[in-house]
Amino acid sequence: MRETDARSYSSRPVLTINLSAIIENYKSLSALAAPAKVAASLKADAYGLGIVQIGRTLYGAGCRTFFVAHAGEGKILRGAIGNQPNIYVLSGPSPQDTALFFGSTLKPVINSLTQARDWLKSIDGVKRPPRTALHFDTGMNRLGIPNSETEVFVKEDGLLDALNIDLVMSHLACASMPDHPLNKQQLNTFKRTAAQMPMVNLSLANTGGVYLGKPYHFKLVRPGIGLFGGSATNQPKKENVRPVVEIHAPVLQIKNIKKGETLGYDALFTAKTDMKIAIVSAGYADGLPISLSGTDKAIITHARIGKENAPVVGRISMDYTILDITNVKKYVERGEKAVFLGQNLDAQAAEAQTINYEILTHLGQRCKRVYIRDGNGK
Amino acid sequence: MRETDARSYSSRPVLTINLSAIIENYKSLSALAAPAKVAASLKADAYGLGIVQIGRTLYGAGCRTFFVAHAGEGKILRGAIGNQPNIYVLSGPSPQDTALFFGSTLKPVINSLTQARDWLKSIDGVKRPPRTALHFDTGMNRLGIPNSETEVFVKEDGLLDALNIDLVMSHLACASMPDHPLNKQQLNTFKRTAAQMPMVNLSLANTGGVYLGKPYHFKLVRPGIGLFGGSATNQPKKENVRPVVEIHAPVLQIKNIKKGETLGYDALFTAKTDMKIAIVSAGYADGLPISLSGTDKAIITHARIGKENAPVVGRISMDYTILDITNVKKYVERGEKAVFLGQNLDAQAAEAQTINYEILTHLGQRCKRVYIRDGNGK
Repeated sequence: MRETDARSYSSRPVLTINLSAIIENYKSLSALAAPAKVAASLKADAYGLGIVQIGRTLYGAGCRTFFVAHAGEGKILRGAIGNQPNIYVLSGPSPQDTALFFGSTLKPVINSLTQARDWLKSIDGVKRPPRTALHFDTGMNRLGIPNSETEVFVKEDGLLDALNIDLVMSHLACASMPDHPLNKQQLNTFKRTAAQMPMVNLSLANTGGVYLGKPYHFKLVRPGIGLFGGSATNQPKKENVRPVVEIHAPVLQIKNIKKGETLGYDALFTAKTDMKIAIVSAGYADGLPISLSGTDKAIITHARIGKENAPVVGRISMDYTILDITNVKKYVERGEKAVFLGQNLDAQAAEAQTINYEILTHLGQRCKRVYIRDGNGK
Repeated sequence: MRETDARSYSSRPVLTINLSAIIENYKSLSALAAPAKVAASLKADAYGLGIVQIGRTLYGAGCRTFFVAHAGEGKILRGAIGNQPNIYVLSGPSPQDTALFFGSTLKPVINSLTQARDWLKSIDGVKRPPRTALHFDTGMNRLGIPNSETEVFVKEDGLLDALNIDLVMSHLACASMPDHPLNKQQLNTFKRTAAQMPMVNLSLANTGGVYLGKPYHFKLVRPGIGLFGGSATNQPKKENVRPVVEIHAPVLQIKNIKKGETLGYDALFTAKTDMKIAIVSAGYADGLPISLSGTDKAIITHARIGKENAPVVGRISMDYTILDITNVKKYVERGEKAVFLGQNLDAQAAEAQTINYEILTHLGQRCKRVYIRDGNGK
């Protein structure tokens, strides 16, 4: 009996996204963070997985606060999850985006005095403008209100009132390294700063911050990667995260190669023995980093075919990848699926010399996104 | 006088795509390849630039033959450019995609005997099915009819007639290295194979192949990267290619940093002196490879602000990148644009330890794509 029906495949690669796993990850993080609430960071199209479907799924799981990077992302999310949840826009108020903030009731995250003044100017005369968050830079030295401006927020008459804030937040630079001294330093700075602010909800932790423990949780944590099946720290075994995303690349052709022949672009791989290869339909345009290519210097990674591993050989090209199936025992014919990522997301990110976040956000639009749930396609 | 109007910016990064430059690149390649015709390879959403707009632009420039990877891409292109042009689907006929081939008159590229038989089965009883191309593997050992199957195509009664081919093609593995012996070897194999086939148009060259000279041109060349502003060979100075794509990342915030402070995730960069930084709104989700991050070990790349260079410092994050503007003389305020790629596409690909093709296909969907022409925004 053959498992694959050759008649049933398309050449288009498929991205499976397991919504049950996302819900489970949300619940695990909620249990860990309780009594703090868990918001979701859905920037960059929910890390490439689709903000509409992921937003609805997390709303269904009880999530009521969301973070996006840009107002345009917020507008799409608002359309998906209705008017009730909070949507904060991390980049803050940019003058050209003001209409989006008002139209979709998006809350700007104020990252500087300048952004505060831009926002106040734009809401002049507007009835019931959205509330805002203040984001303090406590040592990451990226976006956020610098220490030098904090005093103005504290002392300038009417400024905080006019901003009508409902959240004070900061962001950890080194939560991926639990032992890094900057974590505690940022925590202390955040506490000092927050103490000078009105009594509103506080938030500091991304996924890594959740694992740093109670003192980092405050009222609201805001994981991203941990929801989507990636580890967030250098101690992945301490993280309880279920894989979410797989690339399924159909086999288009099987070939026999003679010892000494070269494979693919720039002839980077030479067959050391006679081999059998499968050309599968997914390449770097679909999200497989070219740095996973297998060359004469080194085989970097494998795809899974059934329960077996098939090494990637030759340069990964835009649309196709070559697998060595010489030692695969399963009968492989066209239409068979080669699987990337999934439980190997972190490993394949490391093999590609990047991080799981970058892998996810580079997943190709060309992949057909198929949303599955436990017991349905799994 | 300030060039930037702070009120005019959105936090969303912009991708400018210069259609005039694409047309000029098409004409340069046409002049070089004449009398051969120039087809366009528009796989993967035209290398990330937008298949609808690029397809129409090239059709307007006289292009009448297009190549895509999947039937779904062909359907979108067909809708954009009308019924006249040839659209070949490189992955060949997959059983599940047959309706797309018929519905949009897409020509499958037959890569194996199995694909040939699948196709013939699917057109059984179909009136006037699309014509096809035969793609021979002449030494790349990726997709394509292997030598061992050629004889069947030649000898089996009625097979070629039934396939109704109008193109015989192959693909070069090492055109990026003009001196590589595989080029000539593939050329000779292609000629031998083509001589056994019906008299139809022949095609071998991608962009790199165009630069290999007349013997490689045959009736049709099929460039991709050369149209989109990237060099295709290790002799870029011999290539006549105009830059096409720029990422414009707006400055969201400017900060003063004290000597000894660290920047961004994992504190990978330490300020050696007091510095001035700009946080700009584009990150790896938008297409800036994380491998361009500037760390204590090395500064890898720069963005352009006006005519000056601003080094990337700290880890590039999903949505933001930090630039060192300490030595930038221009007055920089929020809304100012930092520019990546453009004339630096090849250099920044090399700096990121990848190839220009991968940079293009990873350009984020989140970037607003703005199509410009000479004298219009330039």
